[in-house]
Amino acid sequence: MYFLFREAITRKEDPLMFSFANDYSEGAARQVLEALIRHNDEQSVGYGLDDHCAKAADLIRNAIGRDDLDVHFIPGGTPANILAIAAALKPYEAVICAESGHINVHETGSIEATGHKILTAPGKDGKILPEEIEHLAVDRMEEHMVLPRMVFLSDATEYGTIYTKEELTKIAEVCRKYGLYLYLDGARLGSALTAEGNDLTLADIAGLTDLFYIGGTKNGAHLGEALVIRNDALKKEFRYHLKQRGSMLAKGWVMGVEFEALFTDGLYFDLAGNANRRAEELRQVFRSHGIPFLMETTTNQLFPILDNEVVKKIEKEYTVTFWERYDDTSSVIRFVCSFATKKEDIERFRKSFDAIMNER
Amino acid sequence: MYFLFREAITRKEDPLMFSFANDYSEGAARQVLEALIRHNDEQSVGYGLDDHCAKAADLIRNAIGRDDLDVHFIPGGTPANILAIAAALKPYEAVICAESGHINVHETGSIEATGHKILTAPGKDGKILPEEIEHLAVDRMEEHMVLPRMVFLSDATEYGTIYTKEELTKIAEVCRKYGLYLYLDGARLGSALTAEGNDLTLADIAGLTDLFYIGGTKNGAHLGEALVIRNDALKKEFRYHLKQRGSMLAKGWVMGVEFEALFTDGLYFDLAGNANRRAEELRQVFRSHGIPFLMETTTNQLFPILDNEVVKKIEKEYTVTFWERYDDTSSVIRFVCSFATKKEDIERFRKSFDAIMNER
Amino acid sequence: MYFLFREAITRKEDPLMFSFANDYSEGAARQVLEALIRHNDEQSVGYGLDDHCAKAADLIRNAIGRDDLDVHFIPGGTPANILAIAAALKPYEAVICAESGHINVHETGSIEATGHKILTAPGKDGKILPEEIEHLAVDRMEEHMVLPRMVFLSDATEYGTIYTKEELTKIAEVCRKYGLYLYLDGARLGSALTAEGNDLTLADIAGLTDLFYIGGTKNGAHLGEALVIRNDALKKEFRYHLKQRGSMLAKGWVMGVEFEALFTDGLYFDLAGNANRRAEELRQVFRSHGIPFLMETTTNQLFPILDNEVVKKIEKEYTVTFWERYDDTSSVIRFVCSFATKKEDIERFRKSFDAIMNER
Amino acid sequence: MYFLFREAITRKEDPLMFSFANDYSEGAARQVLEALIRHNDEQSVGYGLDDHCAKAADLIRNAIGRDDLDVHFIPGGTPANILAIAAALKPYEAVICAESGHINVHETGSIEATGHKILTAPGKDGKILPEEIEHLAVDRMEEHMVLPRMVFLSDATEYGTIYTKEELTKIAEVCRKYGLYLYLDGARLGSALTAEGNDLTLADIAGLTDLFYIGGTKNGAHLGEALVIRNDALKKEFRYHLKQRGSMLAKGWVMGVEFEALFTDGLYFDLAGNANRRAEELRQVFRSHGIPFLMETTTNQLFPILDNEVVKKIEKEYTVTFWERYDDTSSVIRFVCSFATKKEDIERFRKSFDAIMNER
Repeated sequence: MYFLFREAITRKEDPLMFSFANDYSEGAARQVLEALIRHNDEQSVGYGLDDHCAKAADLIRNAIGRDDLDVHFIPGGTPANILAIAAALKPYEAVICAESGHINVHETGSIEATGHKILTAPGKDGKILPEEIEHLAVDRMEEHMVLPRMVFLSDATEYGTIYTKEELTKIAEVCRKYGLYLYLDGARLGSALTAEGNDLTLADIAGLTDLFYIGGTKNGAHLGEALVIRNDALKKEFRYHLKQRGSMLAKGWVMGVEFEALFTDGLYFDLAGNANRRAEELRQVFRSHGIPFLMETTTNQLFPILDNEVVKKIEKEYTVTFWERYDDTSSVIRFVCSFATKKEDIERFRKSFDAIMNER
Repeated sequence: MYFLFREAITRKEDPLMFSFANDYSEGAARQVLEALIRHNDEQSVGYGLDDHCAKAADLIRNAIGRDDLDVHFIPGGTPANILAIAAALKPYEAVICAESGHINVHETGSIEATGHKILTAPGKDGKILPEEIEHLAVDRMEEHMVLPRMVFLSDATEYGTIYTKEELTKIAEVCRKYGLYLYLDGARLGSALTAEGNDLTLADIAGLTDLFYIGGTKNGAHLGEALVIRNDALKKEFRYHLKQRGSMLAKGWVMGVEFEALFTDGLYFDLAGNANRRAEELRQVFRSHGIPFLMETTTNQLFPILDNEVVKKIEKEYTVTFWERYDDTSSVIRFVCSFATKKEDIERFRKSFDAIMNER
Repeated sequence: MYFLFREAITRKEDPLMFSFANDYSEGAARQVLEALIRHNDEQSVGYGLDDHCAKAADLIRNAIGRDDLDVHFIPGGTPANILAIAAALKPYEAVICAESGHINVHETGSIEATGHKILTAPGKDGKILPEEIEHLAVDRMEEHMVLPRMVFLSDATEYGTIYTKEELTKIAEVCRKYGLYLYLDGARLGSALTAEGNDLTLADIAGLTDLFYIGGTKNGAHLGEALVIRNDALKKEFRYHLKQRGSMLAKGWVMGVEFEALFTDGLYFDLAGNANRRAEELRQVFRSHGIPFLMETTTNQLFPILDNEVVKKIEKEYTVTFWERYDDTSSVIRFVCSFATKKEDIERFRKSFDAIMNER
Repeated sequence: MYFLFREAITRKEDPLMFSFANDYSEGAARQVLEALIRHNDEQSVGYGLDDHCAKAADLIRNAIGRDDLDVHFIPGGTPANILAIAAALKPYEAVICAESGHINVHETGSIEATGHKILTAPGKDGKILPEEIEHLAVDRMEEHMVLPRMVFLSDATEYGTIYTKEELTKIAEVCRKYGLYLYLDGARLGSALTAEGNDLTLADIAGLTDLFYIGGTKNGAHLGEALVIRNDALKKEFRYHLKQRGSMLAKGWVMGVEFEALFTDGLYFDLAGNANRRAEELRQVFRSHGIPFLMETTTNQLFPILDNEVVKKIEKEYTVTFWERYDDTSSVIRFVCSFATKKEDIERFRKSFDAIMNER
């Protein structure tokens, strides 16, 4: 009912410590940085109308396998959500999401600030259920209640879980039935699509949703999310929204260069795959000590339930995120691996954790 | 979890039928109408700066017993809520209410349309609990979440229940503790304050809340709610909000005349008392047949649980409101009495209902 | 360039004084008041879905002579403008009006508060010119500038002037050419359509505009403006906007009753004609003393240029509106006659004014 | 009256051509890029709470010479303006600027989208005048008009002109007199402060304004503007606005790294000085042929008035911006030099231009 989890916002970090706090601690992937250096002295057209953005959009369309898609590069996830939602809805229309949805909890009311209500349902494992959507779509009293018009979901979710093709297809069917747009927040889409158990492809997602974004910030870019619009009704004059909401950067071509690199030679999925592999190795560390998890995940986030005394010891060497209180003596802690996490980082943690557990 | 209840919005009414659908079906109370007639040919200053509004505000201050209150007359309950909330909050601040709160369910996202998120808690019997407020006030992650800054509640609630002095006092204490404004929607405040079991006075409410409104529309006026502001921080330049949100009527003095009449010789409470007495008589009709209620109320709304076959028969002669499905064979039906409901209206219903029940 | 004119907002009135300050000082026209009395004890459906609103809408469609029009009753002019504009525009679209337009100057930024920019042109005599609209429609730099999408004008204008059929037709042509909606604010439409020199009909206005409103507040109603929507694209789900913006009154049927009376037996035009005739008599009073006018009007507003000493003497007996400074010794003063102004009120003023002028 | 000028938004560029279109065509300054490379593998805290942002803010406070300033890094100029203005104003408050102000013309109504009206005055040479501000501050009709509460100006202006210390001081005095916040958009502040004729310092600007921003995007950064807040009333909870408006980047530390470099060893002013010197050399090219300018500037923008035939020839080799039509045969063209413009780029242009002029 209530939202107890939190992201760690540590204000100082000891440089000797290692951080599993999130997947946006490090700079750009090597190939992304090299592309920035390579193109640094070129002159590009402003406001995202340059050749790099055009090329990056083509590469994304190729990766998806269809050419009827508009692609816009947006500085971050919150502005991508603001734009996708506020551009699609009329003033009295609302967006549906799980209670744990990022737009509902951790974006400081940015959707409401554009004038739109968020309707929520409990969901399961961070995922909204088709029957919850149907219920909210049906449960209306004409003009005295907002009109649901869009469903928001994230893949991977806030809990690191992923949607199966069957789940997303059923949700898409409910959306079509009730005239709801389906929008997917892909801040961690790379991790989701390369996770064990995933059976969705970029093409599936483009086909099932009306629009979605491919996250760059959390997968090797300095900044940038690629918003992909398939539904023609949502394409028109979208750049007006981009400009009005403050998300049209003068040097938009920087994001173009970064996504060009990310979608060359499969780099985007390689980086996400690395984060997932490291997370799996970390999972094994916990499993080797019989540590339970809040929920089973195969993406780059894991949520072990740890004794509070153990947590204190971990925090001497590692930055991690307190997620929620589990019981009187233990807590759920979030660990995140990134494109930049190395095998030796996990090895280092294994040693620390073994030592902590053996002390007990 | 979900909001299943509904107000009946019947598009046609048979004039021979009698309506228990709501308390805004009939015109103005006799004394209110007479005042409109009496002052019809006068010339008044526009935009609520006239002598009638000034006089009505004085009468309200007298009824409350303090003179440090600003009073503004607003055409309806939804604009009163919009104004009270949007004028008090900064863009990133939110208002807390029960899930069943009118602003959360039945005002078409009007609060979100002003840019503010509503944070909800389940509540009990339509009332928000102090501990729920405390939880929402504490459960925050700095700038990634909205900042709760106001509590909204209604007296009487959507379910016709009322707050006790102890309950409101505890809520006010939590509000003071966390720096939250307390705002009371008094669309049916007359009914609440004259209900059996009520121990609150207008003075208590003015003292415990930062601002509240005294509903006119549902208690004998054509239109108008008197918004009473006690907290000095909320008084300044309020008329700018009034004008900007479209709630400053050119002939604002009409509301002044109506409230002048309502607050002369205790008329406001007499009218509300009539509605409550009729509702109590109606309650006895149901009780005489052993009909259970969704919840116990002493105000002008009652929620009997009736067999669906019985409801069909009632609806041949009476307009009532389907509230929610109770089980496979029965429903919760809302009956409302108004300032204008007569003893003989209840007698007529008693005969109808006795006949229906005896047929079974 | 700057907006110097002002409406008098006098806070106290001596009841012995007579007010020419505006056309919303007095109550309802006799027939309107009688209708309210006649229907007072009826029960009506709430929220404007009642038989009186339905009947009033039919009467308005009959008066216009077409049945493809949606009609909504809105409490005042500012909310009517908010609704008409905000319901029609996408977030990045703008409305064009004359610099003196009411929405631009005297509605406290209410249009901007819904997120939309107003683009202005100087206009002439309070009227916007077709070439100004064309210029603003053409002068754009794609997504870096707002997209003009609607033209707002008033008939009569803020200066009491009126549009001819030729003028309105030319503006409508420019609007069609550039895909702009045309919206007419008819707060004083009765006065405009019954003014000498007018050649427009309600049917012309409905045909040339996409939507417009017929003002009730300034022509014999307590409150209420009838918004008439012809363009099908603007009709859908309009009641959601009504509710969300706080303009759907629970007792909306009160406005239905009032407009039913206004559009029975031509009352609406009779009342407006009275205001115009009295204004013409008042104009003759000034002309008889050779007083010049800021501009020539034939509606119920007049703008004589008076010596400041004369104004001071007038203000001892009459409430009038200072409009703007004319030169060091004289001012433009606004006089307004209403549906309720009587021939003897003008006679009384004539005597006062003759005396004042003869003293000099 | 109308805004005729435009920025060139060329969609394709021939890589052999050289662009004088703007100062955001090239990548980062060498030292900025090196800093990004140097810190790429570090782990930093997210959302701008990292050590680089803290260090960059300290360097900026040092450069200004006072420590009572809050500094926030914002991705671009439009979001900086949105944040500075929307965070400071109450819903009914307005911002004053020159008609040519960027927020009024070229930000797609982004300020209005936050609910606020922009009040404009003609200004002179792109600069607003103290007497214009005073006029708008005085010319109000209480709650029927918006309440002016802030003055927006740019240094350098849209026309490349700059404010003198005397001019800015007089404006600040008017602002203090009328309780108006003074906000300076410094997208090209580096160029302004290093321009010939400038007598303002960063310290002057911090002292005279309530808040201002130091532009990075147009002076050697990939992205980022440093918003400096001096007025304590505007500091509180500013990060809530940052997050809500979508301007809190997860990797905010990238902007920290870039500004750290820009404010080390005076790089920021060196880069701006280069742009100004190149612009002056370009000015001399035009002067050597007797070409007049729309207005005299000493910053990195120049506005020669060129024969249309000459413009056509220039455009074969150079990307420039059509600003406005001057007369039937000539146009105002904008040329911009940047931190990256080299002496040889100007030499190349000199030869081209000499040849073009000699052909005639």
